[in-house]
Amino acid sequence: TNQAQSEKENIGNLKHVTQQLVAPPYLPKYDQIASGDPVVVDVKLTIAEKKLEIAPGVKIWALTFNGSVPGPMIVVHQNDYVQLTLINPSTNSLTHNIDFHAATGAMGGGDLSLVNPGQQVTIRFKATKAGVFIYHCAPGGIMVPLHVTSGMNGAIMVLPREGLKDEKGNAVHYDKAFYIAEQDYYVPKDANGKYKEYETPGAGFDDMTKVFKTLTPTHLVFNGVTGALTGKNALTANVGDKVLFITSQANRDTRIHLIGGHADLVWLGGSFNDKPATNYESWPVVAGSAVAALYQFKEPGMYAYLNHNLIEAFAFGAVAQIKVKGNWDDNLMKQITKPEKIN
Amino acid sequence: TNQAQSEKENIGNLKHVTQQLVAPPYLPKYDQIASGDPVVVDVKLTIAEKKLEIAPGVKIWALTFNGSVPGPMIVVHQNDYVQLTLINPSTNSLTHNIDFHAATGAMGGGDLSLVNPGQQVTIRFKATKAGVFIYHCAPGGIMVPLHVTSGMNGAIMVLPREGLKDEKGNAVHYDKAFYIAEQDYYVPKDANGKYKEYETPGAGFDDMTKVFKTLTPTHLVFNGVTGALTGKNALTANVGDKVLFITSQANRDTRIHLIGGHADLVWLGGSFNDKPATNYESWPVVAGSAVAALYQFKEPGMYAYLNHNLIEAFAFGAVAQIKVKGNWDDNLMKQITKPEKIN
Amino acid sequence: TNQAQSEKENIGNLKHVTQQLVAPPYLPKYDQIASGDPVVVDVKLTIAEKKLEIAPGVKIWALTFNGSVPGPMIVVHQNDYVQLTLINPSTNSLTHNIDFHAATGAMGGGDLSLVNPGQQVTIRFKATKAGVFIYHCAPGGIMVPLHVTSGMNGAIMVLPREGLKDEKGNAVHYDKAFYIAEQDYYVPKDANGKYKEYETPGAGFDDMTKVFKTLTPTHLVFNGVTGALTGKNALTANVGDKVLFITSQANRDTRIHLIGGHADLVWLGGSFNDKPATNYESWPVVAGSAVAALYQFKEPGMYAYLNHNLIEAFAFGAVAQIKVKGNWDDNLMKQITKPEKIN
Ligand SMILES: [Cu+2]
Ligand SMILES: [Cu+2]
Ligand SMILES: [Cu+2]
Ligand SMILES: [Cu+2]
Ligand SMILES: [Cu+2]
Ligand SMILES: [Cu+2]
Ligand SMILES: [Mg+2]
Ligand SMILES: [Mg+2]
Ligand SMILES: [Mg+2]
Ligand SMILES: [Mg+2]
Ligand SMILES: [Mg+2]
Ligand SMILES: [Mg+2]
Ligand SMILES: [Mg+2]
Ligand SMILES: [Mg+2]
Ligand SMILES: [Mg+2]
Repeated sequence: TNQAQSEKENIGNLKHVTQQLVAPPYLPKYDQIASGDPVVVDVKLTIAEKKLEIAPGVKIWALTFNGSVPGPMIVVHQNDYVQLTLINPSTNSLTHNIDFHAATGAMGGGDLSLVNPGQQVTIRFKATKAGVFIYHCAPGGIMVPLHVTSGMNGAIMVLPREGLKDEKGNAVHYDKAFYIAEQDYYVPKDANGKYKEYETPGAGFDDMTKVFKTLTPTHLVFNGVTGALTGKNALTANVGDKVLFITSQANRDTRIHLIGGHADLVWLGGSFNDKPATNYESWPVVAGSAVAALYQFKEPGMYAYLNHNLIEAFAFGAVAQIKVKGNWDDNLMKQITKPEKIN
Repeated sequence: TNQAQSEKENIGNLKHVTQQLVAPPYLPKYDQIASGDPVVVDVKLTIAEKKLEIAPGVKIWALTFNGSVPGPMIVVHQNDYVQLTLINPSTNSLTHNIDFHAATGAMGGGDLSLVNPGQQVTIRFKATKAGVFIYHCAPGGIMVPLHVTSGMNGAIMVLPREGLKDEKGNAVHYDKAFYIAEQDYYVPKDANGKYKEYETPGAGFDDMTKVFKTLTPTHLVFNGVTGALTGKNALTANVGDKVLFITSQANRDTRIHLIGGHADLVWLGGSFNDKPATNYESWPVVAGSAVAALYQFKEPGMYAYLNHNLIEAFAFGAVAQIKVKGNWDDNLMKQITKPEKIN
Repeated sequence: TNQAQSEKENIGNLKHVTQQLVAPPYLPKYDQIASGDPVVVDVKLTIAEKKLEIAPGVKIWALTFNGSVPGPMIVVHQNDYVQLTLINPSTNSLTHNIDFHAATGAMGGGDLSLVNPGQQVTIRFKATKAGVFIYHCAPGGIMVPLHVTSGMNGAIMVLPREGLKDEKGNAVHYDKAFYIAEQDYYVPKDANGKYKEYETPGAGFDDMTKVFKTLTPTHLVFNGVTGALTGKNALTANVGDKVLFITSQANRDTRIHLIGGHADLVWLGGSFNDKPATNYESWPVVAGSAVAALYQFKEPGMYAYLNHNLIEAFAFGAVAQIKVKGNWDDNLMKQITKPEKIN
């Protein structure tokens, strides 16, 4: 059509901006409010098949975008175009691709991006819908869960051009954002119950499909490995900070809780086009989606951000921490009397 | 009361319309906007206990409404009455009934519809709430999950009399609708790990209750059998079509994703009385509910509509396909460079 | 700050009101609309470690607040303060605390409330957010799921000062309220498949963590024990009653359905600050949350309120009953012809 034609011509005139991706939980440099017309955002993802110790002594062949589990967060504004070069180095052994839930058509780009080791491909899509969306490898059939549960997933945030709005329609500015993904792994065991290690990425696939049949992961962690975001790796914030937490789960339902805090705002289903819900104690992230929640910290201390299936948090590993600095407010919470002998 | 009395008299004066039910994924003939006053919609469901090969070589005794898994979609408008004749042929071996989530009282009708083989019963209920709702057999106690997970469930769509509205309150007309139900099966295995087959429908019940204790289905499929809606059975649509997808799950949580597409609109919880959410990448269908989502196809090609627990989709079978015809729009998605040697 | 200082001084001037807690499913005495300024609501929870027969012949060491599973519902109005004295009698053997999802900071109060046997502690927090929220013991690490899945959780309802509102913003008064909590237990078995019993509460913990790895509960019940709310323990209501059902699940996703009824209103995520959704057939309660739903009974009879994973309801125990008295309305539901020989 003429309109489509004119739009295609327009893309040729749009400014290209290169976005340098960084490893999660951090986000690349971007503006919360778009400063001008739509642009083409150029990004590059290099696939790395690598050994990863996901828990003490448990080593898997992680399949990754840019070496991290999850892959890096991409950030654009609604109606921007994403132009992605996907690189599958010849040192890899498998065929991969990328399916963007933010994209339209061609299996989210999966049909146009299949690359063998030694190949690269470039695709472009228009980010028509505002929200947070996952992307993942989807090479077809049983390979889809095999690659996704080996770590091959990440997310893109498509901000409204005018920025986020709260439940009343007022502009929301946040002070920092973290990308925390839950990853389920299905690591096969040997006859002695010991987790198996394999020579090549594909060597474990047959065994993994048997574990799949239990629908029960052996490991469930945030950002790839047990403890990736706890202890010395805890995230940091200050009292008064409005923090945007983006959480994805590419393969399994989860539900998030911030101990001692709330979701002041939560964009259910990841949609920035809908009014956010408010004041959730725990909020759902269904399998195959990313969700954003905003919390303004009001008290200092150590917070836990976790899957509130407490078994999945504390027996499997799905927990992060945020260390918050600032002054304590007795109005919100106070220890009136210390632990003492019962009266 | 006088009011109830006058309402009862009114029902006697209402027009009766017979609805010819059809097998899913198709819907019977109906109007999206009601053309006049409420009517009594007469429908008939005949129960069939039948052998069904749900996956290659795996044969179960399916318990069905009208011979299909799921049972047929019934479509009425809000404040219409549904008058159902439920027939349990003497060739069947079990007692059945029907519980409509759209109905009020008497266990959704279950208390008034219990029929032995050789019996029929007729009940009537008023469809007071607009939305999509499941119905299922519910003969009491452990028989409830045994019948439901043997396929005995379907759905009814209760349209607002004035039709659907989008998130802004504007009228929504759709071009086609499909009813896709996810079914979980719990097929017992013998000592060699082979799926068992039974002489009669009831013969497998004791074994099935043991599989129930794992809370892990052995099969999880769309519309009754593996591949019911894939390959040559794929659904079809055209670019520009607004398609309403109604998905139910009578016994287990699921979450739906359309690869390469979205839920432009999704009526969470199946409620047509609430504003639809917009732009979900994946959307929840909790156990015991039906949900409707609308998508306008924008690109041609093959789409997958699936449970985005990718294991449940690709290792268990919960996937459908939609073949969409039309012209490709480079504006939304384009392969900029084909797979090539890395620069 | 001066503001915080002035707020602290104000708390000292606030009226104290003692709330006598009662065992669920009942709620303590309270007003649906706050009668004046914020108050400090004084409550007391005494921890009891006790043997509990959760199903015929299955005895666990329940860890409880006030002796009941779930712990009692606390009810306050938004911006009231909760002042809790938590008592751990010297007859107990374990260290416990309390984490309120309604609270802000200090791990929801968990950091300030850890008490050894023989100790008590008093904490105060401001209920800033309106909604229903769980509380639970959270002594750290793997102890968190061990205590929570031993029964140590309950809920608080923080009502808007002006009371509840429906989806149109109109005031909602309800006639009665019930608190129904789903509890998942992970009871270890011996080599013969018999459920084990232990000498002390802590003695079973190692075995329980092994059951945790299956992510599959052995028992799943409402209000602590199989049949707590069925048969002679069924709840009661009258036709015309608006009943508020508050359901919590501290550790596992569930989904609720009222057979023969609906959620006329459901405050998803438990938030009273958001418009309620309407007319849900089944509604989600994600792990780590409480949700409130309102239904006005329209027909008499026995209703079932259940987890609509029908296996979890009928093979595990997650079902309650409500016996409703009043006059039958043929307009909503009528048996037109009784079960009879097929025509
Ligand atoms: Cu891959
Ligand atoms: Cu996907
Ligand atoms: Cu039946
Ligand atoms: Cu039901
Ligand atoms: Cu405890
Ligand atoms: Cu908690
Ligand atoms: Mg990196
Ligand atoms: Mg799309
Ligand atoms: Mg999303
Ligand atoms: Mg048929
Ligand atoms: Mg009803
Ligand atoms: Mg529904
Ligand atoms: Mg008590
Ligand atoms: Mg808080
Ligand atoms: Mg809540």
